[in-house]
Amino acid sequence: MAYEGYLKEFLEISQITVGDTVKVTKPGIEHKGMLLEKPDYSNKNTIILKLNSGYNIGIDIKDAKIEKISSGQKPKIELDPVDKQISEEKDNLSILSTGGTVASVIDYKTGAVHPAFTADDLLRATPELVDYANINAKAIFNILSENMTPQYWKETAEAVYNEINEGADGIIIAHGTDTMHYTASALSFMIDTPVPIILTGAQRSSDRPSSDAFTNLMASVVAAKSDIAEVSICMHATEDDSYCDLHRGTRARKMHTSRRDTFTSINMNPLAKIENNQITINDKEVQYTKRNENKLSINTNLADKVALIKMYPGIDAEIIDIYTDKGYDGIVIEGTGLGHCSDEVIDKISRATNENIPVVMTSQCLFGRTNMNVYSSGRRLLQENVIPVGDMIPETAYTKLLWAAGQTDDTEEIRKIMQSNLKGEINTTSSQNYFIKN
Amino acid sequence: MAYEGYLKEFLEISQITVGDTVKVTKPGIEHKGMLLEKPDYSNKNTIILKLNSGYNIGIDIKDAKIEKISSGQKPKIELDPVDKQISEEKDNLSILSTGGTVASVIDYKTGAVHPAFTADDLLRATPELVDYANINAKAIFNILSENMTPQYWKETAEAVYNEINEGADGIIIAHGTDTMHYTASALSFMIDTPVPIILTGAQRSSDRPSSDAFTNLMASVVAAKSDIAEVSICMHATEDDSYCDLHRGTRARKMHTSRRDTFTSINMNPLAKIENNQITINDKEVQYTKRNENKLSINTNLADKVALIKMYPGIDAEIIDIYTDKGYDGIVIEGTGLGHCSDEVIDKISRATNENIPVVMTSQCLFGRTNMNVYSSGRRLLQENVIPVGDMIPETAYTKLLWAAGQTDDTEEIRKIMQSNLKGEINTTSSQNYFIKN
Repeated sequence: MAYEGYLKEFLEISQITVGDTVKVTKPGIEHKGMLLEKPDYSNKNTIILKLNSGYNIGIDIKDAKIEKISSGQKPKIELDPVDKQISEEKDNLSILSTGGTVASVIDYKTGAVHPAFTADDLLRATPELVDYANINAKAIFNILSENMTPQYWKETAEAVYNEINEGADGIIIAHGTDTMHYTASALSFMIDTPVPIILTGAQRSSDRPSSDAFTNLMASVVAAKSDIAEVSICMHATEDDSYCDLHRGTRARKMHTSRRDTFTSINMNPLAKIENNQITINDKEVQYTKRNENKLSINTNLADKVALIKMYPGIDAEIIDIYTDKGYDGIVIEGTGLGHCSDEVIDKISRATNENIPVVMTSQCLFGRTNMNVYSSGRRLLQENVIPVGDMIPETAYTKLLWAAGQTDDTEEIRKIMQSNLKGEINTTSSQNYFIKN
Repeated sequence: MAYEGYLKEFLEISQITVGDTVKVTKPGIEHKGMLLEKPDYSNKNTIILKLNSGYNIGIDIKDAKIEKISSGQKPKIELDPVDKQISEEKDNLSILSTGGTVASVIDYKTGAVHPAFTADDLLRATPELVDYANINAKAIFNILSENMTPQYWKETAEAVYNEINEGADGIIIAHGTDTMHYTASALSFMIDTPVPIILTGAQRSSDRPSSDAFTNLMASVVAAKSDIAEVSICMHATEDDSYCDLHRGTRARKMHTSRRDTFTSINMNPLAKIENNQITINDKEVQYTKRNENKLSINTNLADKVALIKMYPGIDAEIIDIYTDKGYDGIVIEGTGLGHCSDEVIDKISRATNENIPVVMTSQCLFGRTNMNVYSSGRRLLQENVIPVGDMIPETAYTKLLWAAGQTDDTEEIRKIMQSNLKGEINTTSSQNYFIKN
C-alpha cells in the first residue's frame, strides 16, 4: 500500500538523508526542520521532522513538496573513546542507563528520541564527568519509561545492589522522566543503601539548545558523591539552567508535561540544592539518611498484583469487584478530598477488605494528608478497615503496597508496614507545604 | 458487645452532653475538645471530639477518663427568620444548596459535619448577604460531594436553568469541595448562561474560628453580581481571609486536602480576585464571557458510561478490555508525561477505538499539555486514533466526554467536540503556567 499515490513524494524523499534540514510544503502548511525519520515503506507514509522549537512532528507526505535546505551537520559530540583513567583519589560512581530522553544525548545524527543508546555513549557525550569521578557506565536496558514494570524495578534494584556491593561510592540511574518517580519510590523500599542512589533524566534531548541533560547529569554526579544516602531524583529546579533540586524518591512527582523543572517534592521540601557543582543540603528543614548509616541490603519481594484506582463521580463501583475477583494482593484508592469515595464504592471496598485484600486510601488532591475522621463517609471507610496513609502520595502508596504485600499476607502486618515511616514517605505531623514553584 | 468492659467509661459519658467541652485522658495521651458524638451503644465504642485545631478525632473510650470542662455554649448564630424584604434596586440572586461543609455553617449544636441543612438555614447563618442582593435560597439536595453523580449534575443544571429562566441575575451553588470541580465543569458544558453561576463551599465548618464559609459566600455574592457570565468556582486564594479567587469551572482543581486555598486554576490564571466585596477581573490575562453575551439554554444529554483511568507501571492492561466489553461510551486516559502509556495498554486501546469507543488522552502531570508527536509511543497512540486534548485537565476531559458522547455516536464528531474550545477548557497555544501558590 505504501507507494500507492505517493510516487513523487517517495522520489523526493529518496534524495534526502536523515539529518538534513528540509522544508516541507503542503496546502496551507509549511514546516522546516531536521529530517528524523523517513517513511518505512511498509505501512507508514509519514516523515518525522524535528522543528526548531525542539518538538518532533509527524507529517503525512501525501501531496507534500519536500526540499532539502542544507545537509546534516557533523555531530557536535566527538565519539572518541573516553579517557577512563582510574584515580584512587576520585569517588567510584556507576551510571546505569535504563533509557529515556536523557539517554538520547548523543543521538544527534538520527535525532529521534528513541531509547537506543548505551551508558557508555552517555559518558562519551558528557566526558567532563570523568573529571569528577571514576565513572563506570552500564546499560541495564533500553526502554521508554512508560514501558517500565515492577519486573524492571527488580532488575534495576539488583543492578544497583551489585554495583554498590562491588564498591561503588554512588549510583546514577539514567531514566525516562514519565515514570521516574514510580521507580524511585519502588527502589526506596527494595534497597537499604549506604551510598546515594540518584535518578536523573532529561525533558529535552541534547540536540535542542535548551537541553537539560548535561546540567542534570553533572548535578547528579555531585549528588552521588554527597552524604545523602537515599534514593532520590536530581532534576532542574527552575526553567533556566541555574540549579537542580534533589527530591526524596518517595516524595517526588512529575507535575508538568514539558517544563524542565517538572519534578516537585510533595508535602516536604527538597533534600538539597545543587548549583555550580556544589551541593547545599537543606538540613534545617529536612532530616536525611547519611552515608554509611545503613548497611547494604536488598529485598525485591513484590506482590504480583496491586491496583491504583482514581475515584470520580459516576465511577462504576464494580471495578473494585473486578480486582477482588481477580485475586488482587491490594488496592490503592485515590480518593477525593481527605480520603473519600461514594457510598456505592464503600460497599465494594467492604467486600474486598472482608476477603482480606488490603485497601489503602490516598488523596487525589496530592497535597495535604488523609483525615478520615472528619466526615461520615471517611468514618465509614475506617469501619471497613481501609488503611489511610496520611501524607503519602498515591504513586508511592502503590509501590509501597506492592512491596508490603510482597513481605506478608497478613493484612494487619501490611497495615503496620503501610502506616510506618520506612523511607521518609509518610509524616505523622501535618505538613502545610503546598505548591512551591512559580 | 458495646458495654462489655466499658462500664466506667459509659457512666462517665452519660454525664456529658454533646456540645460540652471535655478532657479525655488515656495512658500517654490527652485531648481537649467539644464532644460531637457519643458511642452508639451498639457496635462503636468511640467518641468524636472536635479539637481546637478544628479537626475531629475519634477516640476509643476504653480505659479513658472523660471529664467535663465546661458546658456547651449557646449557638453563636441566631435562628430568627431572615428579613427578606425584596428591593427592586438589588440584584436577584439564587442560592442553591447541594450539601457539603458550607451547608454546615449553622450546625453548631451537634457539631458534626453532616450535610443536613437547607439553603434557608445557610441564609440565616449569613444574614448580611441580604444587604447585597435579594436572596432566594433553595436546597436542591443534601449530600456529601463524594456521592455526587452525573444524574445529580443534571438535576443541578435543571435547577440552575429554572432560576435563571425565572429572572435570577446570578446563581450561587453551595457544594462540597471534594468534587466541586467535576460539577463545575459538567455544568459548564450543560448550560449556556447569560449570568454568573458560582460554585462555592467551605473547608472548615463555621464552629471553627478559622471557618472560610462566610468569606467564600460573601465573595460569591460579589462574583454572582459581576459581569463574568461563566460557571466558576469562588474560594479562598490564601491561607488567611484576605481574598478569594474566581476559577473557571473547566480549569479548577482541588489541590490540597485541608487548606482553605485548596482550589487552583490549572494551565491558566484565575478569572478574578474578590477582596473587600470588590471584584477585580483579570482581563489583561484572561478572556471571559460577559453578562448577556450568551442566551440561556440547557443540554443535559450525557452518555451513560465513561471511564477515567490513570496509568501506572504494572497496570493490568485488561482493564481497558473490561470497559470495552461493558460497552462503554468513552474512555479518558490519564497518561504519563506528554500523554503516554505502555505498549500493552496501547494494544488494548487499539481494540477499543476499532470498536468505535472514543479514547481521550490527558496527562497525570496535570500541568502542561499532551504532545504525542515527540516519542514513539505517543505516535503509536495517534495511529490508533486516540484523541489528545492538549492542556485540558483529566477531570474536565471526563465530564466533557460524558457530554460529547451524549450528543452523538459518531466518534469523529466526538473528536471534533473534544478538541474544540467550548467553555475555555482547552487552549491551542502552549501555557507554561505552573504552580501558583506558596
